[in-house]
Amino acid sequence: MLTNNEIKTIRSLKDKKFRDGLGLFVVEGEKMVGEALNSSLEVVAVHRVEEIGEAAMAKISHLTTPSPVLAVVKIPSEPVPGSLRGLSVALDSVRDPGNMGTIIRLSDWFGVSCIFCSPDCVDPYNPKVVQATMGAIFRKKIIFCDIPVLCRRFRSEGMPVYGTFLDGNDIYRSELKSEGLIVMGNESNGISPAVAAEVDARLLIPSFGGSQAESLNVAVATAVTLSEFKRRG
Amino acid sequence: MLTNNEIKTIRSLKDKKFRDGLGLFVVEGEKMVGEALNSSLEVVAVHRVEEIGEAAMAKISHLTTPSPVLAVVKIPSEPVPGSLRGLSVALDSVRDPGNMGTIIRLSDWFGVSCIFCSPDCVDPYNPKVVQATMGAIFRKKIIFCDIPVLCRRFRSEGMPVYGTFLDGNDIYRSELKSEGLIVMGNESNGISPAVAAEVDARLLIPSFGGSQAESLNVAVATAVTLSEFKRRG
Repeated sequence: MLTNNEIKTIRSLKDKKFRDGLGLFVVEGEKMVGEALNSSLEVVAVHRVEEIGEAAMAKISHLTTPSPVLAVVKIPSEPVPGSLRGLSVALDSVRDPGNMGTIIRLSDWFGVSCIFCSPDCVDPYNPKVVQATMGAIFRKKIIFCDIPVLCRRFRSEGMPVYGTFLDGNDIYRSELKSEGLIVMGNESNGISPAVAAEVDARLLIPSFGGSQAESLNVAVATAVTLSEFKRRG
Repeated sequence: MLTNNEIKTIRSLKDKKFRDGLGLFVVEGEKMVGEALNSSLEVVAVHRVEEIGEAAMAKISHLTTPSPVLAVVKIPSEPVPGSLRGLSVALDSVRDPGNMGTIIRLSDWFGVSCIFCSPDCVDPYNPKVVQATMGAIFRKKIIFCDIPVLCRRFRSEGMPVYGTFLDGNDIYRSELKSEGLIVMGNESNGISPAVAAEVDARLLIPSFGGSQAESLNVAVATAVTLSEFKRRG
């Protein structure tokens, strides 16, 4: 059984304000809850419909159709790591939950070291993002930090900072190192001027066949960029 | 001014049943309407908020926040073309509107010849899809057809049929021709058995760094696949 107070607390986690205040987020579905339990994250509580009843589950679920199991998980507090080795991604004001979830999922696929987020990115512990990651959120380090400062740290350690721009150099013909930072920008405005000033190599995914398209979706651009870096090893 | 009947008709276009019955779909926003007017598609009507008033616009708009302009456009009826030259994409039961919109948008970027859809794909003229294409829906040929029959036509014309599978061959090490058909499958089930039987070359986008991720989102997989085909020319 859940008390009214517990129900109220779990419901409140739909809002970033309460997730931040309590340091907790919600995970739903057998598969996702199983992955949370097998991860290094701290699972605070698991609620099953057969224990709490359908009415209570409908109240605490963040989904239109509640699943039979819901877990409350502690938001990990990740400092910028001491070592920045490997290839990492920095998101500069990525605002759409679907894009954020897709980028976390594909960063997991491509073996990205860390995902750095500017403070104005959409919250990765937003329920829509969590579900879109398909479990990758339990495996990847997601670190909020000042992106220009981070870029300077990468450079000071001899690793390049890459960014995608509509006036960059053809990524297929560019030298790409196996370690460094790839910055991806906002859905409408791209990479902000303060971050752009810290980018060493401006990359472009060229269009083909005389396309009149103006841009690629940021999640798609991240996928193509990571594929190109990783295939070259 | 709009009559109540006109308002009712435009509102009804939220539903696939009425879009199919009337052969019409709705486009919203200055940029999208401008692209529709500049395309080969037939624009049946353009309604501006300064002409019809905010109340009527709120009634006919499919968006939460109506934009100042809305157009009613004829759904193009595209037969399978006589020539299948170039690189095309076939979608086998892609059901998510966001994925469909993203795939149409990136197919435009990568200069894909045609987008073929199985009859059970999500409707590309669904308002969510239309907006997600960022105008690409006015530039790309979208053709509903039987995908196994289409695969056999490609093969009979000497062009290979590719598909992505979780047990396929590393795409980065595979021979990829500049012409042919790339089949992408359903979000949960991948490519259906009937279509899989017609695929000549089974491709896999490999994961990296010992990733435990099980799959990539279909729009992301389409992007990586097209990037790999196109960069090789």
